[in-house]
Amino acid sequence: MRIILDGMGGDNAPGEIVAGAVEASKLITDEICIIGRQELIEAELAKYEYDRNKITVADATEVIGMEEAPVKAVRTKKDSSIVKGLNMVKNGEGDLFISAGSSGALMAGGLFILGRIHGIDRPAIASVYPILGDKACLLVDAGANSECKPANLLEFGIMGSIYMDKVIGRHNPEVGLVNLGVEENKGSTLTKAAYDLLKKANLNFVGNVEARDVPQGACDVIVCDGFVGNVILKLTEGLAWNIFGLVKHKFTSTTRAKMGALLLKDKLGELKKEFDYSEYGGAPILGVKGPLVKMHGSSNANGVKNSILKAIPFAKEDVVGIIQSTVLEIEEIETSD
Amino acid sequence: MRIILDGMGGDNAPGEIVAGAVEASKLITDEICIIGRQELIEAELAKYEYDRNKITVADATEVIGMEEAPVKAVRTKKDSSIVKGLNMVKNGEGDLFISAGSSGALMAGGLFILGRIHGIDRPAIASVYPILGDKACLLVDAGANSECKPANLLEFGIMGSIYMDKVIGRHNPEVGLVNLGVEENKGSTLTKAAYDLLKKANLNFVGNVEARDVPQGACDVIVCDGFVGNVILKLTEGLAWNIFGLVKHKFTSTTRAKMGALLLKDKLGELKKEFDYSEYGGAPILGVKGPLVKMHGSSNANGVKNSILKAIPFAKEDVVGIIQSTVLEIEEIETSD
Repeated sequence: MRIILDGMGGDNAPGEIVAGAVEASKLITDEICIIGRQELIEAELAKYEYDRNKITVADATEVIGMEEAPVKAVRTKKDSSIVKGLNMVKNGEGDLFISAGSSGALMAGGLFILGRIHGIDRPAIASVYPILGDKACLLVDAGANSECKPANLLEFGIMGSIYMDKVIGRHNPEVGLVNLGVEENKGSTLTKAAYDLLKKANLNFVGNVEARDVPQGACDVIVCDGFVGNVILKLTEGLAWNIFGLVKHKFTSTTRAKMGALLLKDKLGELKKEFDYSEYGGAPILGVKGPLVKMHGSSNANGVKNSILKAIPFAKEDVVGIIQSTVLEIEEIETSD
Repeated sequence: MRIILDGMGGDNAPGEIVAGAVEASKLITDEICIIGRQELIEAELAKYEYDRNKITVADATEVIGMEEAPVKAVRTKKDSSIVKGLNMVKNGEGDLFISAGSSGALMAGGLFILGRIHGIDRPAIASVYPILGDKACLLVDAGANSECKPANLLEFGIMGSIYMDKVIGRHNPEVGLVNLGVEENKGSTLTKAAYDLLKKANLNFVGNVEARDVPQGACDVIVCDGFVGNVILKLTEGLAWNIFGLVKHKFTSTTRAKMGALLLKDKLGELKKEFDYSEYGGAPILGVKGPLVKMHGSSNANGVKNSILKAIPFAKEDVVGIIQSTVLEIEEIETSD
């Protein structure tokens, strides 16, 4: 298998991207092809010992910035790492594309270059949500679609369920809908209608979940529109940062506290790790015709390494094909009704 | 002034409600009239020393439960503490109504009994959001309106701004809109249109805020639809609980950690207090023709006491009157345009 890795995306490119690729390469047999400005990437690679059969470089002279209008950028920058990398996946020269670049550009590129899976109206970003002290869950949509129809939420449930099963290995995953209350009749027009669709679908649907229960793993796949998903992810990040900042402040405010904190150093480190997004890998973009993974924009080498390792089953288990056949089956059942 | 306190609302009624009233009464000169089943409330009051001129009881034989359909409950249970209490405010027998009862019933009661302020389309629940280690901010709408029009979000900004100024004493408060990104052109159809309205209004509008920045006090008044507001409040509560649970687990897992935790006992207590909703008082329901405050359903005596103390300026500063005159001024300006 050949993994195409965007060497130019994110805040720490290309240094941390290349470092993460070198780390990951030691643990896998697949080829990692880093795409981007060749001289920059080769200069970074020169810092490490690595297997030249397992890490290769593809040249792309342009870079799509985080602030560029996504659609325009994808349409005009034909020699950018994102456009060239996605074309490699489309043409069979790669099996998986991973990038810490702009979510908008990756989504636009996924749509224009790879195309939507037949029957999927709205591809979505699925983000692994770190359940504290326990197994992670998957949040779909994590921010791609700020406005959704009920059928889109059903699609998110189906795609998330397949990804959770095949990539994360959680079989028959529980699917829940973010809502104002757990009762069936609660919610907005959107969530009430989505509830009915999810309930009828061939999913392990457990009903509504309240935002309060998300951090303790209310279910395996958490379905919501992209606006709400964005709020859940960003608020979690902001709150965790804030609490750790406050803990640090309190724990260094007196000599006695400093002594206590010293004794708890290991435990504080463990706590911080539970919240470290770089442990959980990237966010798959589901619903496009090729495995495509968005890494956190500020990914460090460890985050890049984990994103590569955790994304491999996305391609190897043919998640795209399974989503396609599942959607076709549903269409056939609906047509024959 | 006469504060009408619902003696029957919430998980800990009437015990904690009465205990909180007794505590608050020692600190204020106003009368607190506890409404509910007289014999139950008097039995609780009998446990304390209190000034019988400052704490009185009004009998209401019915109770509206947390699970009852709000509109039906308010229409049929004429002798409930919520319906009778709100009628007392309407008839001038009370200046402020405070309850830990069902949000839905309070909102329905506010609408049917007190009525909407002229020009306000959608009354909202405004919740004090605890900014860690610093001043609190106000989240409007915290869950009353799961579907909103852009003009509703403008109303939330205006009402929240007045409440923040008059009740919390934060002058010229900064108003922000929860959105997917800080850029002006970001967001859904709803938030884009609301942005334009808020920008044109006579408010200290600071633009979009991301959910990530809410916990560190991005601004004083945080405007969003009730679905998003519900997610923000409940996720914050769930995540804080979860983090403290994890901290407790880690800090008691080894002897060394236990020793450290012992040295940090005070600091851990301080941390927990930062998250304790009972410190922040109740949530005003803004947009109805009378001061109405919803307390957390699980309020303890301390929460009840703080809700009473912090709600007093809501009535004394005539926030309802100021909202009314502000909305009328806007209407006049629009009409004369």
